[in-house]
Amino acid sequence: MAGNSFGTLFRFTTFGESHGPAIGCIVDGVPPRLPLDEAFIQGFLDRRRPGQSRFVTQRQEPDAVRILSGVFEGLTTGTPVMLEIVNQDQRSRDYGEIKDRFRPGHADWTYQAKYGIRDHRGGGRSSARETASRVAAGAVARRVLETAPAPLTVRGALVQIGPHKVDRSRWDWAEVERNPFFCPDADTAALWADYLDGVRKAGSSIGAVVEVVASGVPAGWGEPIYDKLDGDLARAMMTINAVKGVEIGAGFAAAELSGEENADEMRAGPDGRPLFLSNRAGGILGGISTGQDIVVRFAVKPTSSILTPRRTIDTAGHETEIVTKGRHDPCVGIRAVPVGEAMMACVLADHFLRHRALVGAPGPVGDGSPLGDGDPVGG
Amino acid sequence: MAGNSFGTLFRFTTFGESHGPAIGCIVDGVPPRLPLDEAFIQGFLDRRRPGQSRFVTQRQEPDAVRILSGVFEGLTTGTPVMLEIVNQDQRSRDYGEIKDRFRPGHADWTYQAKYGIRDHRGGGRSSARETASRVAAGAVARRVLETAPAPLTVRGALVQIGPHKVDRSRWDWAEVERNPFFCPDADTAALWADYLDGVRKAGSSIGAVVEVVASGVPAGWGEPIYDKLDGDLARAMMTINAVKGVEIGAGFAAAELSGEENADEMRAGPDGRPLFLSNRAGGILGGISTGQDIVVRFAVKPTSSILTPRRTIDTAGHETEIVTKGRHDPCVGIRAVPVGEAMMACVLADHFLRHRALVGAPGPVGDGSPLGDGDPVGG
Amino acid sequence: MAGNSFGTLFRFTTFGESHGPAIGCIVDGVPPRLPLDEAFIQGFLDRRRPGQSRFVTQRQEPDAVRILSGVFEGLTTGTPVMLEIVNQDQRSRDYGEIKDRFRPGHADWTYQAKYGIRDHRGGGRSSARETASRVAAGAVARRVLETAPAPLTVRGALVQIGPHKVDRSRWDWAEVERNPFFCPDADTAALWADYLDGVRKAGSSIGAVVEVVASGVPAGWGEPIYDKLDGDLARAMMTINAVKGVEIGAGFAAAELSGEENADEMRAGPDGRPLFLSNRAGGILGGISTGQDIVVRFAVKPTSSILTPRRTIDTAGHETEIVTKGRHDPCVGIRAVPVGEAMMACVLADHFLRHRALVGAPGPVGDGSPLGDGDPVGG
Amino acid sequence: MAGNSFGTLFRFTTFGESHGPAIGCIVDGVPPRLPLDEAFIQGFLDRRRPGQSRFVTQRQEPDAVRILSGVFEGLTTGTPVMLEIVNQDQRSRDYGEIKDRFRPGHADWTYQAKYGIRDHRGGGRSSARETASRVAAGAVARRVLETAPAPLTVRGALVQIGPHKVDRSRWDWAEVERNPFFCPDADTAALWADYLDGVRKAGSSIGAVVEVVASGVPAGWGEPIYDKLDGDLARAMMTINAVKGVEIGAGFAAAELSGEENADEMRAGPDGRPLFLSNRAGGILGGISTGQDIVVRFAVKPTSSILTPRRTIDTAGHETEIVTKGRHDPCVGIRAVPVGEAMMACVLADHFLRHRALVGAPGPVGDGSPLGDGDPVGG
Repeated sequence: MAGNSFGTLFRFTTFGESHGPAIGCIVDGVPPRLPLDEAFIQGFLDRRRPGQSRFVTQRQEPDAVRILSGVFEGLTTGTPVMLEIVNQDQRSRDYGEIKDRFRPGHADWTYQAKYGIRDHRGGGRSSARETASRVAAGAVARRVLETAPAPLTVRGALVQIGPHKVDRSRWDWAEVERNPFFCPDADTAALWADYLDGVRKAGSSIGAVVEVVASGVPAGWGEPIYDKLDGDLARAMMTINAVKGVEIGAGFAAAELSGEENADEMRAGPDGRPLFLSNRAGGILGGISTGQDIVVRFAVKPTSSILTPRRTIDTAGHETEIVTKGRHDPCVGIRAVPVGEAMMACVLADHFLRHRALVGAPGPVGDGSPLGDGDPVGG
Repeated sequence: MAGNSFGTLFRFTTFGESHGPAIGCIVDGVPPRLPLDEAFIQGFLDRRRPGQSRFVTQRQEPDAVRILSGVFEGLTTGTPVMLEIVNQDQRSRDYGEIKDRFRPGHADWTYQAKYGIRDHRGGGRSSARETASRVAAGAVARRVLETAPAPLTVRGALVQIGPHKVDRSRWDWAEVERNPFFCPDADTAALWADYLDGVRKAGSSIGAVVEVVASGVPAGWGEPIYDKLDGDLARAMMTINAVKGVEIGAGFAAAELSGEENADEMRAGPDGRPLFLSNRAGGILGGISTGQDIVVRFAVKPTSSILTPRRTIDTAGHETEIVTKGRHDPCVGIRAVPVGEAMMACVLADHFLRHRALVGAPGPVGDGSPLGDGDPVGG
Repeated sequence: MAGNSFGTLFRFTTFGESHGPAIGCIVDGVPPRLPLDEAFIQGFLDRRRPGQSRFVTQRQEPDAVRILSGVFEGLTTGTPVMLEIVNQDQRSRDYGEIKDRFRPGHADWTYQAKYGIRDHRGGGRSSARETASRVAAGAVARRVLETAPAPLTVRGALVQIGPHKVDRSRWDWAEVERNPFFCPDADTAALWADYLDGVRKAGSSIGAVVEVVASGVPAGWGEPIYDKLDGDLARAMMTINAVKGVEIGAGFAAAELSGEENADEMRAGPDGRPLFLSNRAGGILGGISTGQDIVVRFAVKPTSSILTPRRTIDTAGHETEIVTKGRHDPCVGIRAVPVGEAMMACVLADHFLRHRALVGAPGPVGDGSPLGDGDPVGG
Repeated sequence: MAGNSFGTLFRFTTFGESHGPAIGCIVDGVPPRLPLDEAFIQGFLDRRRPGQSRFVTQRQEPDAVRILSGVFEGLTTGTPVMLEIVNQDQRSRDYGEIKDRFRPGHADWTYQAKYGIRDHRGGGRSSARETASRVAAGAVARRVLETAPAPLTVRGALVQIGPHKVDRSRWDWAEVERNPFFCPDADTAALWADYLDGVRKAGSSIGAVVEVVASGVPAGWGEPIYDKLDGDLARAMMTINAVKGVEIGAGFAAAELSGEENADEMRAGPDGRPLFLSNRAGGILGGISTGQDIVVRFAVKPTSSILTPRRTIDTAGHETEIVTKGRHDPCVGIRAVPVGEAMMACVLADHFLRHRALVGAPGPVGDGSPLGDGDPVGG
């Protein structure tokens, strides 16, 4: 089975190479009569767009999205939503030298080994440019989530660059939008700016950790056993370029906790629902949302495109070295923040629809009159 | 879409509750003419079986598997393989007190919230007993992997219990089978025995970390973008009961590495293939196997079934306390080792078949004569 | 991808060979809190059961179904429902002679060609015995359909045996249960009895046509473009053993109709919905239900198990002849009626859930109180 | 689950409305290193293109296809192939009057009932214009089939228009390309021309039957039980606009055959394979190809766009009439021929890959040297 689709009910399929004519996706399973236009999607793409600060790649791409189907007079129609982003700044001359050499840490060798052919221009399909399509799909997912029974937010932040973790006692979501790192603390952001300038000037790169939090997710989403909400989130995040680890709630720290420390106790909350006294579970138990915040973190490795010569082989099997010039991110974890948010939104939209299929729930709108007001009939 | 299946080409679907009449799975997509019998599968089930040491639950279950279909005269036929394990030791009296109270850290509340009904006996469907079906499926997956182009091994070990990590300098795979912890170092195993006796006697529990390694996987398996090998492994492990984090290769440590440290350099190896000088990637680049060892680690939280009273609510929404008696694992991470191995084997079997579909590769056997010797014809 | 599953949201996976220990299925995606017990399912199995008249095979099988999971205290729990039917009357001695010869019209040769191995006993997996699992799944599907917004019936009848078509002017659904042919007209049934006695005594067999009708299906079910309701029904019926053609509404007769004759005109009906003046469409337009009766017919070929010697080859490729003794149906179309009904019910249950996922709709029950009354919460 | 994808391993997803900016598809699961360019695909699109004779719609669309991804230097790369066709002749003024009225026999009412919103311009998503995407995907499928173990052809013909069936004794595949009907007999084509001129001048329309034949398909393709080759073909054809019936081999005629007449006898053929003496089975037994020609027929209803006023209701539920002006096909069955061929090719490509996954088979090319010659390694 081909591997370029994500999701079951809310499902998107992406296409496109870094230096081909265009990238984009078809989003299938979008409920009808949701408001959707290009400006809404563009807002999310702009957060991920390259060239916005000195800490990310200087490739110039407007990443202008165009809706080619599935929307009529400003509303989704229930048919597939096609989103296309034309590639502008291809500058393929930068990539000539990687045509015949495998860059360490990149997918050059594995694509060659798997397919016996490789679009070497900018990494081709394996380029992180593909994540723009995810962000576009994520915007549509947010429209779907707006029809959930209660308000729901999905937000991400960078919480670690190299050895420098964010000071959680100073966490401020509003700050995330004010600095070029999606950092929830201004002081940490200042520290990171200095640190990353050093990395950048050295032609090096550094890893990072991203945290994504969904608030307002009702209890009950997730489909045990193999489509657990945390299983789907783990897959979602691990498929983002350069991600090497994913954890939920306490995550790897749970290995050092006792049962007493780890299990979140409950008191009586509103409407007979539990009020949890902690959230080591990260909002998921048994693969199903608890009603608490869903908290996911993922580790992003440093980009392997650096200025230090590295030992490798060429396509003829001979030993050689390579230096990856071009325009690259000193910390690709930064731009992974909106991508992680998008994947979280897509996973939640999918599970919202799946849960609705299983147990039923009111749809987005409808006063019951079948004709003339856009309300579906018949079940 | 229902969530009780795993895999695409090699695909299993499990059923059964902890205290129902039986558990098991249908394994679909099994290539024909593989040797398979109950004894082979039983060997793997016995590694996961409860009651084998004082460090795991004392529930007595022979976990005897029976093949109900898909095998004829000792060989698979290409039709679905049904594996059934009858539940013996149900003792549902132990579970009466959890009927009306939600155990903290368990899925009691979330199952109730999702389905509005809950088989409370032993955790019902959310019990880790379900993982026996995974182990059975994993045995079939190993038969599939035996037909891969080169020998391939899948092995797991426990590498951390609470604060105590294994001494990697003393790693010995043979030792794994000699102690009750699947520990690759005898000294660490001795230390863990003392430590865990303390935990057990206190009626408490503790977390752990499992590592699973696949050696001999050829370069080229994995289906970018969304069915990357690491994405599927992340999902596979995260769906195991109590798992809260998954990492590949350097994992979360990659956040603190520079590009120079992280990217695995290459020298010329046999047949023009690269010889990697390190394995920070954990054997996967761009979602595709590199030919190196595939290394996955996952964190297992402590079981929430402990003897200390915990605050919770009952099904009427009233505040109360609960003590989970019964027979439980002080460190559920131990028995997660064979489960992790099984999931690795299933993921690899699936991707072996997927890669073979895409690029073609010789089948398991066959001398070309179509009839009388069991060789398929026709492409 | 393995081929033993049917459906997307309401999805069943079958296993088992004609003469293995058992057959059955796992039904996944069953909404919680539906009443379900073995007696309800058995009622449908009994309609398909062999040995009930002289016009069907005399194999003696009680086809007693057992629920192994997914039901707790008489209600479904939302977890997979496992249904098992133990094979009783295996008499594999009857099948010895077909071990080495390919029966014309059967799947003996194709299974050998595909898999290079074949369970020859009674046709193995290719036996129509597999359809008992479909009927069991269909019973569960009917429970799902009981929660649809309005009452819905699924009924089938045999409408043709050989050259003898039913007299439609005398159609009486009640009559279907009174004769051994599921014939909606007593006079036609009498004629068929005489005709089929002749076929049976000659050791021959004959084809038939089955019609299945669903009434009360609301407008709006079906997922264009590739999961159209009629596309799914066509696949569903064509996968039933011996089926060679499927048509919806006017079907093949539409080839000879003009646009004026074919398009069903509309007048104003209740609630602004259309009142159609005819039903050439068979209740489906654009792949979506119209609200009219859904009408499907399928042609069933004569069984190839006949007493006349037939030319064939053996597994060594030598020319030979074969006579298929044993206990067979002179008209397998008869027992295809409950199977066709079951497949219709499964397709509709799946599309009911799919439509509910897309646009939302009330679930089965629920007064909004989250705990203590079995009502799910959280959307 | 969203319904706009077809296939499992070879899988395409279509998008686009009749009068939106573009239509097209993403084809996923395309093996690497197949030759592919726009001219090859265009050749198939031109066969389906409107405006080529007076017997089809006069809408002017060049249907020029553009490859946006998945091809590098003339070869497929194993990544998704995106095919885009920009809509040119939208003339949406023609469709103003159908905005508020439901055309009988069209999907206007059902789309409104399902989605509560409807892109009325030219039928929106329900327009047969969508089938251009299928034809484009079918061209890619043919490239896949060229790598099958033996040469394989997929050809279609129109075999009936209204009451006039083709004279099968004069069948000539070469003739199919010489007349505007895809008719395999020149005399029948002449008769149809006269007949259809009458239909066209009367502003009426008429149904038809299409036959598609695949020759050279090896024995063994098809995945019992639910993904049988005939089941997938039935679904494939039934999802084509206006199709109301599908049959394989003898089809509905099998209902009147005896077991002696129906079962295809075998003699010894080359290599121990059977030489069948007839082909009532249509090349499929037990859902698996026999090695004979695969023969599928499907009935296409007359288009409901006719000049005779028809009774209907408007979107407010009031009774009214409608005449569908605009540019329409008097016999939509004609242009369904290349669409049926494309769907056959896609089903076969999918099952080719699925069979290869299950039992293994040589890939498209490869001399075993891993690097520098485009040959994949590693399994």
